[in-house]
Amino acid sequence: MKAKLQEFLKEDIGSGDITSELVVPAKARAKGRIVCKERCVLAGVSEAGAVFEELGARIVKIKKDGSRIGRGDVVLEVEGAARGILAGERLALNFVMRMSGVATLTHDLVAKCRKVNPKVRVAATRKTTPGFREFEKKAVVIGGGDPHRAGLFDAVLIKDNHIKMAGGVIEALRRAKSGSFTKKIEIEVENATDARTAVKNGADIVMLDNFGPDEVRKLSAELRKINSDVLIEASGGIRPENIEQYAAGADIISLGLLTHSVKSIDFSMEIEKA
Amino acid sequence: MKAKLQEFLKEDIGSGDITSELVVPAKARAKGRIVCKERCVLAGVSEAGAVFEELGARIVKIKKDGSRIGRGDVVLEVEGAARGILAGERLALNFVMRMSGVATLTHDLVAKCRKVNPKVRVAATRKTTPGFREFEKKAVVIGGGDPHRAGLFDAVLIKDNHIKMAGGVIEALRRAKSGSFTKKIEIEVENATDARTAVKNGADIVMLDNFGPDEVRKLSAELRKINSDVLIEASGGIRPENIEQYAAGADIISLGLLTHSVKSIDFSMEIEKA
Amino acid sequence: MKAKLQEFLKEDIGSGDITSELVVPAKARAKGRIVCKERCVLAGVSEAGAVFEELGARIVKIKKDGSRIGRGDVVLEVEGAARGILAGERLALNFVMRMSGVATLTHDLVAKCRKVNPKVRVAATRKTTPGFREFEKKAVVIGGGDPHRAGLFDAVLIKDNHIKMAGGVIEALRRAKSGSFTKKIEIEVENATDARTAVKNGADIVMLDNFGPDEVRKLSAELRKINSDVLIEASGGIRPENIEQYAAGADIISLGLLTHSVKSIDFSMEIEKA
Amino acid sequence: MKAKLQEFLKEDIGSGDITSELVVPAKARAKGRIVCKERCVLAGVSEAGAVFEELGARIVKIKKDGSRIGRGDVVLEVEGAARGILAGERLALNFVMRMSGVATLTHDLVAKCRKVNPKVRVAATRKTTPGFREFEKKAVVIGGGDPHRAGLFDAVLIKDNHIKMAGGVIEALRRAKSGSFTKKIEIEVENATDARTAVKNGADIVMLDNFGPDEVRKLSAELRKINSDVLIEASGGIRPENIEQYAAGADIISLGLLTHSVKSIDFSMEIEKA
Amino acid sequence: MKAKLQEFLKEDIGSGDITSELVVPAKARAKGRIVCKERCVLAGVSEAGAVFEELGARIVKIKKDGSRIGRGDVVLEVEGAARGILAGERLALNFVMRMSGVATLTHDLVAKCRKVNPKVRVAATRKTTPGFREFEKKAVVIGGGDPHRAGLFDAVLIKDNHIKMAGGVIEALRRAKSGSFTKKIEIEVENATDARTAVKNGADIVMLDNFGPDEVRKLSAELRKINSDVLIEASGGIRPENIEQYAAGADIISLGLLTHSVKSIDFSMEIEKA
Amino acid sequence: MKAKLQEFLKEDIGSGDITSELVVPAKARAKGRIVCKERCVLAGVSEAGAVFEELGARIVKIKKDGSRIGRGDVVLEVEGAARGILAGERLALNFVMRMSGVATLTHDLVAKCRKVNPKVRVAATRKTTPGFREFEKKAVVIGGGDPHRAGLFDAVLIKDNHIKMAGGVIEALRRAKSGSFTKKIEIEVENATDARTAVKNGADIVMLDNFGPDEVRKLSAELRKINSDVLIEASGGIRPENIEQYAAGADIISLGLLTHSVKSIDFSMEIEKA
Repeated sequence: MKAKLQEFLKEDIGSGDITSELVVPAKARAKGRIVCKERCVLAGVSEAGAVFEELGARIVKIKKDGSRIGRGDVVLEVEGAARGILAGERLALNFVMRMSGVATLTHDLVAKCRKVNPKVRVAATRKTTPGFREFEKKAVVIGGGDPHRAGLFDAVLIKDNHIKMAGGVIEALRRAKSGSFTKKIEIEVENATDARTAVKNGADIVMLDNFGPDEVRKLSAELRKINSDVLIEASGGIRPENIEQYAAGADIISLGLLTHSVKSIDFSMEIEKA
Repeated sequence: MKAKLQEFLKEDIGSGDITSELVVPAKARAKGRIVCKERCVLAGVSEAGAVFEELGARIVKIKKDGSRIGRGDVVLEVEGAARGILAGERLALNFVMRMSGVATLTHDLVAKCRKVNPKVRVAATRKTTPGFREFEKKAVVIGGGDPHRAGLFDAVLIKDNHIKMAGGVIEALRRAKSGSFTKKIEIEVENATDARTAVKNGADIVMLDNFGPDEVRKLSAELRKINSDVLIEASGGIRPENIEQYAAGADIISLGLLTHSVKSIDFSMEIEKA
Repeated sequence: MKAKLQEFLKEDIGSGDITSELVVPAKARAKGRIVCKERCVLAGVSEAGAVFEELGARIVKIKKDGSRIGRGDVVLEVEGAARGILAGERLALNFVMRMSGVATLTHDLVAKCRKVNPKVRVAATRKTTPGFREFEKKAVVIGGGDPHRAGLFDAVLIKDNHIKMAGGVIEALRRAKSGSFTKKIEIEVENATDARTAVKNGADIVMLDNFGPDEVRKLSAELRKINSDVLIEASGGIRPENIEQYAAGADIISLGLLTHSVKSIDFSMEIEKA
Repeated sequence: MKAKLQEFLKEDIGSGDITSELVVPAKARAKGRIVCKERCVLAGVSEAGAVFEELGARIVKIKKDGSRIGRGDVVLEVEGAARGILAGERLALNFVMRMSGVATLTHDLVAKCRKVNPKVRVAATRKTTPGFREFEKKAVVIGGGDPHRAGLFDAVLIKDNHIKMAGGVIEALRRAKSGSFTKKIEIEVENATDARTAVKNGADIVMLDNFGPDEVRKLSAELRKINSDVLIEASGGIRPENIEQYAAGADIISLGLLTHSVKSIDFSMEIEKA
Repeated sequence: MKAKLQEFLKEDIGSGDITSELVVPAKARAKGRIVCKERCVLAGVSEAGAVFEELGARIVKIKKDGSRIGRGDVVLEVEGAARGILAGERLALNFVMRMSGVATLTHDLVAKCRKVNPKVRVAATRKTTPGFREFEKKAVVIGGGDPHRAGLFDAVLIKDNHIKMAGGVIEALRRAKSGSFTKKIEIEVENATDARTAVKNGADIVMLDNFGPDEVRKLSAELRKINSDVLIEASGGIRPENIEQYAAGADIISLGLLTHSVKSIDFSMEIEKA
Repeated sequence: MKAKLQEFLKEDIGSGDITSELVVPAKARAKGRIVCKERCVLAGVSEAGAVFEELGARIVKIKKDGSRIGRGDVVLEVEGAARGILAGERLALNFVMRMSGVATLTHDLVAKCRKVNPKVRVAATRKTTPGFREFEKKAVVIGGGDPHRAGLFDAVLIKDNHIKMAGGVIEALRRAKSGSFTKKIEIEVENATDARTAVKNGADIVMLDNFGPDEVRKLSAELRKINSDVLIEASGGIRPENIEQYAAGADIISLGLLTHSVKSIDFSMEIEKA
């Protein structure tokens, strides 16, 4: 994480924080507090703390990631050189605001789904902001969701375009199974026939893409009869409004919007002389 | 940009795209098309193209960033090794979906404001996704907005916390003016008195933070009497619903939500054998 | 791979190839051939080619990785600036010599085991040379082996030390199963009781560490009765001399020596004026 | 070294140690001991210690590199967060196992040669694992050997391919002598005539490539009559079985196998709750 | 700065400080003092201190950057491992010698100009040593000068070649004004007509390139009548001999020689056993 | 070199060349010429060319490094996108101006010395600009000088502070000789006694630090009687005014000012539409 923090600080500070260098004395010391402005599940506060530590400040108090918090709650208090705290303020807030946004949305959708099916998993996708994935996936986990793949390197997921290039579901699965025994094999299908073929040919997970909630429920039952261990993932066209309907049938519900269309949670930072 | 692309590809591909390596023949060639799924202002397509070029594919057709497009429009067509195109698909889409989201929102807000005041600027802030700022700011510009500062290094902006550490508006401005003559000086104020003091003490730009639209209009007129060249930036509490009301008084309206709370635009990629 | 090549070239060339700069005219052009000196399975030749391309030379002829070759076979021919070819010679040879060593050893052990059990996999471990893992794992695959995990990030493998820290096999497995559904769960055990407990508690793969060949055969049969899908990996104390005995019982046989104790294959490079 | 450690840790840990994150509590603390399993000359233990320090653990006890050790000896004891120690275990062991392998082999060959000629040096070559050279060369030195060149940048060594490109031994030496006065000039020759020419034309070191032991002895005597300060290096075709025969004639004996074909020494790590 | 220090240390130390490793015991501790050899304005001493800290030494005493010092003054005293201090000696001295050279020259020229015009600024240019700009600009500031632009990214400066490409002064300024409101606009002109056009068309700063001192004085007065806020920068053909003559008319005098043709100040380092 | 170029371009361009992006059309193409303004030995022009190539331009004509040139000579002509050429202009000029300054000074001093002693070498030191050493050393070589050490890694040079830490000249030399046989051993001495001791104890090169020209001449003769192969380097207190007097006695004369106190040569760039 340290290398990422340094990269992010460099993005913001570049050749120097010219305002603080002019306006704030080099020796001035300050105390800073990050304050929550609206109800949320807190995430990103350990990253925010690390930002200030990287800049030489000391963490005085820090709330735990995952805490349920509301307006006025102080989530982080730091102390150190005023210039360092001012230089880190924006990056720290950007971490907390975005990651709490992701965690809160995830949490709310998980809560909805668990009422219907206490075992269902709500999962993220690879539709993340380039360069910021590890933090968005972490926020999903803090919110109670499943991170799904970290990238193309850690799981086999055969998608529509792969199937086309391989020449069909059966051939794609056959090839995938020649890979390392350490990996599960997931395949995305767009109709019930392909779903059945996939399970019969050894898929560990079947992703039903753009199926209606009823179809998912019925087809899942059928597929589990073929292989009771198969996992069913519903994906495509799932929104906060209809997600509960998918919870009954699927083992996993995945949504891009957990990471690609999130409202930030409002936080602010108050700094004073120490 | 190349270094960023490589970093982003590494994030997604890591130790290898294990699905394509298993399922898609090394020599297979493919054609891919990115297709728009909803009305928007296109952005990020030159980045998407560069992703595929980095992976050895060739751009066949590409729409211009800034184009007004709708459902079904093909914005990019590439041709090359199937594995390369599959490895780049997600990153390319992530660029187009996010940046078009930012450009479209910016465009809509600019259009609203320009009806009231054709000269007003709608500006972004530093509330961007860590590591992805240059792309979010570029999308703001494509949407007709102003990028504001690139970071702490390229403009002086004295904020509330700086004023506290410096010991007041006058002292903060005095110090700021000892900096290089190449930089304008902007200051954020929270009341009319400070605004007047700022203009009298040489601020080039005054940011009115959390003022109502009427206050902005009246105070702007007053401040311009003190210095006809001063620029007035309204910030804080501005939303799509009330932005037009600010357009009358301010020279610049800045909003964090242009980059921190954006809905992605939907695009998909279709790949076939070439 | 490009970044790695540049790092490796920098390691060898550093502040400059002072011999060639003095002795070889800047404009001299040369042809170079890498020649095999002993029977082997070729690996690393695409890396060797890439080394010369990075230095501005052109590949004239190249044998395929995985070819069975012998003394006198030319595996790569390049042409370009003499200084570039001389600067790349050592690194190119280091790739071919080491990777062919790994591929050849793997190939020989796989051949031995397949006589006994045509479905058995011979797998590598994480006992690789720091910084060179991707190439050693690739050579294992070229030799017909299984790469096993790429690192700590792409599969769950609960080892003895994890079990101690978690407080037992059952608790360790329970926790592991709360992780993402995309990952299989493998656990290392040191006795038959733990092996049974692991399978009963949902392990996808059981690694039998330091069991004799007979124990592996008997215990595997027993474990497969509990769960017919479970995979059995034998590890620890396996050597070229006894590996065949393990092939009967296990699904996978893993050995550190595939990557940590390998004899390089001899190759040399001949360069002449072009 | 720190940058290398971070690179190596990243290779193994990548997007996260998913096993420990699931199975081992974040706050658990542990003690770890690296134990030797066979007689060797210890090397790499300072690197192993640095791995754990990089991950936040503390070194409790550490044996000196170069120690003669045997089965059961504890070479390193560390204490810290359990997750950190587990994350570093493999890399630390990979350092110790490989570097001790190199140091032990070097030590044994040096011992053999010194019986014949107490002043002879046993030297490594540039046939090292790409990216790991500094550690392999260091292990050679710990074992009592000579590291020879660090790379192409720190010594002039005119090899067969250089001579061909330069147009002969005399011309190659003439050009080399125009280089900086700070460097010695070594030249590789393949017959006695070239050896004599080299010494007469100012070579500081002559490498006799693929000469038999008797030839080396006789020719060395002859060459020292031409220039008593010239150093004679024997290289090519030298193996543990015949190395002693070369020790009589040469000042230096260099072998690629010191770094390219080494058996790792067995070590293991034991971890327990602290 | 830390990343730069590490890069600079790597440049000098590379694969190791082979002299100290041979000659100085690993455990030897030393004290080092950097001593001034001639009158100067001190700069670079905080960088010198950071060099030694990076190498594990401790700062015992350090003079402030900007101090007026003379022959015999000790500017830095450090204590630590002898090898670390020896490895950092040259880089530390290179920082102090160069940066003090720049600061001293700047200081002398500023002093000259301020006698004539106490408000005039003496500014650097982008004619800096590649890779070392931040330190040269900092030394200019320590000497009392203005750093001018940090690079192409933080200010708009339209030069002769831009004007040619844009098709004239008016068009260039028109385009520049469409950029972000956060930036001033400076333009370089080569005659009085263009200067007047520039001011009339909204340039914030006009750089008079290669004008004589009298022209600068007269034209400045005229331009200020058009816009009393415009800043006048004189540049080109300004030397220590004639700089005072420019001070009367211009607001800013910029010279490349502040950073491109500087005599280093002599310092030496004394080390003794601690 | 490519990595260095990219680092240097990033230093200057950072988050973007905001002037050209506003003022120069993206599609405009241009031709640029670098023109010499004063007599010099040309250096840095291949680096300047590489800068423009890195930015996508094409070299049309280029003079050879080392050419003797004068006012009005065009040393480089490039063609490409106008924005690319404008972005590279400053860095390209910084290379040529500085490196030609170093090459010209070196050339003039070498010419002076060669009149007295045609075999004498004029050598640089490690007193280079941090991060820019390879280019300054290269310019010294282009000017006919000797680069001396590239850094601490490629030659053994025992200096006064090493001798103090080692406990004397004899002990320092004894330890140094235990290092690799591939390195020469140079030692710096401050009096005739130490010089004699050094030669008697096997130093390959003796650096006479701060000796007068007569002392150097007499002592050199004496030292060569002890060992006819020893090289004598004079260093310390040598200036353009007195360098000839040292040429008679020493084999090598080294001066820090070749790289630390150099006047840049004036060049300019003319750009026009293509």
